[in-house]
Amino acid sequence: MTTSTAPSASAPLWARTDDTHDPALRSWVTSANDPGTDFPIQNLPLGVFARTSGEREGEPCVGMAIGGQIVDLGVLANAGAFDDIEEFVFEACCEPSLNELMWEGAAARRALRKRMSQLLREGDQEFTSDAALRAEALVAQSDVEMLAPADIGDYTDFYASIHHATNVGSMFRPDSPLLPNYKHIPIGYHGRASSIVISGTPVQRPCGQTKADDADMPSFGPCRLLDYEMEVGAFIGEPNSMGHPVSLAEAEEHLFGLVLVNDWSARDMQKWEYVPLGPFLAKNFATTISPWIVTMEALAPFRVPAFERDASDPKPLPYLADAGNAAHGGIGLTVEVWLQSKQMKDQDIDPIRLSRGPFSQMYWTIAQMLAHHTSGGCNMMPGDLIASGTISGPTKDSRGSMLELSWRGTEPIELPSGETRKFLADGDEVIMRGFCERAGYRRIGFGECRGVVMPAQG
Amino acid sequence: MTTSTAPSASAPLWARTDDTHDPALRSWVTSANDPGTDFPIQNLPLGVFARTSGEREGEPCVGMAIGGQIVDLGVLANAGAFDDIEEFVFEACCEPSLNELMWEGAAARRALRKRMSQLLREGDQEFTSDAALRAEALVAQSDVEMLAPADIGDYTDFYASIHHATNVGSMFRPDSPLLPNYKHIPIGYHGRASSIVISGTPVQRPCGQTKADDADMPSFGPCRLLDYEMEVGAFIGEPNSMGHPVSLAEAEEHLFGLVLVNDWSARDMQKWEYVPLGPFLAKNFATTISPWIVTMEALAPFRVPAFERDASDPKPLPYLADAGNAAHGGIGLTVEVWLQSKQMKDQDIDPIRLSRGPFSQMYWTIAQMLAHHTSGGCNMMPGDLIASGTISGPTKDSRGSMLELSWRGTEPIELPSGETRKFLADGDEVIMRGFCERAGYRRIGFGECRGVVMPAQG
Repeated sequence: MTTSTAPSASAPLWARTDDTHDPALRSWVTSANDPGTDFPIQNLPLGVFARTSGEREGEPCVGMAIGGQIVDLGVLANAGAFDDIEEFVFEACCEPSLNELMWEGAAARRALRKRMSQLLREGDQEFTSDAALRAEALVAQSDVEMLAPADIGDYTDFYASIHHATNVGSMFRPDSPLLPNYKHIPIGYHGRASSIVISGTPVQRPCGQTKADDADMPSFGPCRLLDYEMEVGAFIGEPNSMGHPVSLAEAEEHLFGLVLVNDWSARDMQKWEYVPLGPFLAKNFATTISPWIVTMEALAPFRVPAFERDASDPKPLPYLADAGNAAHGGIGLTVEVWLQSKQMKDQDIDPIRLSRGPFSQMYWTIAQMLAHHTSGGCNMMPGDLIASGTISGPTKDSRGSMLELSWRGTEPIELPSGETRKFLADGDEVIMRGFCERAGYRRIGFGECRGVVMPAQG
Repeated sequence: MTTSTAPSASAPLWARTDDTHDPALRSWVTSANDPGTDFPIQNLPLGVFARTSGEREGEPCVGMAIGGQIVDLGVLANAGAFDDIEEFVFEACCEPSLNELMWEGAAARRALRKRMSQLLREGDQEFTSDAALRAEALVAQSDVEMLAPADIGDYTDFYASIHHATNVGSMFRPDSPLLPNYKHIPIGYHGRASSIVISGTPVQRPCGQTKADDADMPSFGPCRLLDYEMEVGAFIGEPNSMGHPVSLAEAEEHLFGLVLVNDWSARDMQKWEYVPLGPFLAKNFATTISPWIVTMEALAPFRVPAFERDASDPKPLPYLADAGNAAHGGIGLTVEVWLQSKQMKDQDIDPIRLSRGPFSQMYWTIAQMLAHHTSGGCNMMPGDLIASGTISGPTKDSRGSMLELSWRGTEPIELPSGETRKFLADGDEVIMRGFCERAGYRRIGFGECRGVVMPAQG
């Protein structure tokens, strides 16, 4: 095999690009060369899948997406394909989740990426010359069910878009939309890990307590103001031990990769329950993630400066400031939310796009979130997920929740079926997409994070 | 073996007592018959331990406390002691955590209790006649290290003492101490599972952001207002699936048992960070639990009516009200907090008791917390932990945090060493205890939940 070009030693580790990012690279998996694919050979995201037929039906396997196919990394590992690289990659690829590979840290993940980039290149014979191996290791994405990529120990949700915080704050607290701590602290809270589900899982409208402003007493029943929130989530790789914070400079080395997150929200329940300890049942009935983790290495070409603060904004405290983060802490990732109602589906009307937003416009970077999260000594474990909070940009068409798009229901959204929406209706399917584009590089995508709203029960 | 007396069929399952509660029962483990022991044969709590020497040093084992000893349940299982009871008990006792036994639900746990109650009784020969088995299965508590009893997937912290909520509320929000939702909703929030540690683990004072009321800018440094919170935690046994709430009537069947919880709190960090999404770093640096889970069966004789609300209080909504919960939803458990400073230790001064509080005075029962938690469809998994929130009673000597005892530092606590405390100092050891007493029954205890404060680092 050939050795990859060594990256510039002066570049921060997480901002390096190497020959795996070469836009001219093509794969012998021809669907990876389609201009529209989310998964060209420059991406190589990781996930866990199960075959839907055959001898190994239902068995969780670690895989890598390439075009419309998946490479079963356990099969390759057992065939000796990883014998010459980082010691633990073999074992990690034979696990039923990505947690082991996450444990091994960035070096193992990078070694795996380089090796797979070689094996999947057009012209490479090592994989393709063994027809039996190829048949066993290559599975069509249409022939699998995607599973949760990791056992998620703890899930944290941040609130890092200043546009979102200002929009929502002005509705819930008109007198103080942006609270005094916002520009000093990456505000976050612990969420529910057990109810995180994979894209495609139907989501049941929750029941809960709500209280109308003019009612004396609360009542219990189906949520009436069901919403989505378009977020990005980062999986933690290498852990830190309790009492040992991760510095901002080290933070990116602890990130494994990103997924799309739909933080389903029951706005009427949230309004009644959230003081003084924060959102609880309004959020914990379901959170949907996209199945493919786009690694930090795949994102390297798309790193951009962190959000540029107003001159009048306070400088972050030293533990939340460093030059590398300011220069490269952002990610040039565009996220989109699409909607297809039941009626649209019945009438063969395609989903419509509700919004498109820039992840680069978040007030806090993921590294800042992680550095803050651990600053008091909290230990982060491989497979932990930290979500960004709703990604809203400065313009109306970049608002990442229906609450903001319809401005709390005062500006209903018109659908091509003639329906209108203030919040989500039963049967609505929410589809989130994300992609990175940059001149001189191949576009990479995140696949989809979708979920259809089922009626409340009981 | 003899068969246990059948409980009254009319009693709710979770309020039954049977011959395992007979106060006249004695054990051939003589230390279990000491009047002062927390672990008489009527208790039989479950935990996970590792031997500190010998061939099996460090290996996690499921155990049951009896007096000053531990029975290694895996050893008994492999010797065939559980062959005649509930099918999965054998496998569950051979695991490195209690999660499997939790999965199996209340029936398996009850069968195990009955069997162990028989095997440990004075006069029973089955265990004692086999000297080799006895030597292998019985371990002194002084010869082990206690481990986390379960892999805790999700941790939730409630706020169920109206006295605590009123005390704290009046300090943080003098104009609205008790918020409008308090008497309608068991207020709770998601906590951090990864930083839950077992009694005896030192706890490092966290660093974090705080802002003085008269300062323009926040600063970062060691927490100055470190506190404990005396809580009780309930481990979940049988799970519920997503979208399928656990009704209040069913809730007790999903509870495995209780431990003591110290919800360490950084008050200065909490004040600055907690709006609008709740406590985060102020709580997630460490939470200490006692190692022995006192099962719901052991607690059966100590069940008491739920907190009696004022006539003017609102009635709970139907999903939070049923007759069984009102009649038996409380637990007659007394909790105590003790403190020993470094100076007291150096001067051989025993710990002093700071408070003693009644768990029965919580505004919401554990069953109400669980029914509420799942009411929107959230799935609870075996090993999940739900904590009660600080247990404060109506009197000053029953306040469960130093914040309340010192009334935010305005009424310092005097220690027998001549020191005073407004909040915790480095070297302070906080020791929590809990016990149930009732005329006609044997007292049972929870052991200890202790932790010493180590200086901040960095």
